[in-house]
Amino acid sequence: MKVDVNRKIILASGSPRRKELLEKLGLEFEVIKSDFDESSIEIKNPKKLVAKLAESKAEEVSNKENITSDNLIISADTIVVFKNEILGKPKDELDAMRMLKLLNAQKHQVYTAMCVLDMKNMSKRTSVVKTDVVFDKVKDETIMEYIKTGEPMDKAGAYGIQDGGSVLVKKINGDFFAVMGLSVNKLFQELKRIK
Amino acid sequence: MKVDVNRKIILASGSPRRKELLEKLGLEFEVIKSDFDESSIEIKNPKKLVAKLAESKAEEVSNKENITSDNLIISADTIVVFKNEILGKPKDELDAMRMLKLLNAQKHQVYTAMCVLDMKNMSKRTSVVKTDVVFDKVKDETIMEYIKTGEPMDKAGAYGIQDGGSVLVKKINGDFFAVMGLSVNKLFQELKRIK
Repeated sequence: MKVDVNRKIILASGSPRRKELLEKLGLEFEVIKSDFDESSIEIKNPKKLVAKLAESKAEEVSNKENITSDNLIISADTIVVFKNEILGKPKDELDAMRMLKLLNAQKHQVYTAMCVLDMKNMSKRTSVVKTDVVFDKVKDETIMEYIKTGEPMDKAGAYGIQDGGSVLVKKINGDFFAVMGLSVNKLFQELKRIK
Repeated sequence: MKVDVNRKIILASGSPRRKELLEKLGLEFEVIKSDFDESSIEIKNPKKLVAKLAESKAEEVSNKENITSDNLIISADTIVVFKNEILGKPKDELDAMRMLKLLNAQKHQVYTAMCVLDMKNMSKRTSVVKTDVVFDKVKDETIMEYIKTGEPMDKAGAYGIQDGGSVLVKKINGDFFAVMGLSVNKLFQELKRIK
């Protein structure tokens, strides 16, 4: 599916998954990673936190040089929540082990926020999607094998649902692509709206 | 994630999606498409039908030349069910339009069966996964655009959840990869069991 958007699209994220998802919509875009310091935000409510993080990334990129009124900035953020604990990216392999053992055979929530900032009129649309993810019961050795692939290290909650993590996930209730990094369906709708 | 299986794996399916899903498990395999005539099966119950179709594909391939006791045959089948109607692959573009208009803004079920046939001891394991899929409400023009991409034509229910169809799907309840063609999680478990 190709969406025609009369703007120069900027993806404010270095995530290769998000890049892949934008490509699903046949979009041409430039990647400008946000330098926003996520640790500067202290919000306990997951929905508010993830929305704020996505917005802050878009805003930070909007202040960069070379950004013009022609640009449409798309940013996103994903957090994993298990029993009120927000799981970010693991600090090291042991931390990944801790997280994956927490999630093993349990249900957790993934919150994904997307922000679409239109520099033409500074209209900003932020939305949050929540998805339940149920992990299968797997052996510690399977978790360790997975950590050894290196995949968990740059991912919230220490897993990527689309690659190796696919063996850990039993079922989801919600939007798969949001768990992967960005709701393709929501983005499609937002882009259709832009004049 | 890499699974070591002490067998020569045959994928009894020509689907590029299933090929991609097997590659997620780091498997090496050969594709031998089944020539089984699906129209020869008349079963009304979706779960029984899809299981029978997957098993029949594996069995048909097991009778081919060059299959040895070294082989492990993996087959799968996916059907889409909307209000008791089983939707197969669309006959033509108009049929795809009919199906996608049926599914628009509604919930339907996807049944995916997988059969793993071990030629060493003729053990056969068949399992069926059911996933609810909720379509977003989209305009006819979006459906027509999607049909024009050609993607719906070789897919049950006239959509592929992983590519262009991602803009049509609002949420799922179940296993994303099963909807795509095969449960990666279930296959991982089956392969771990094989000695």
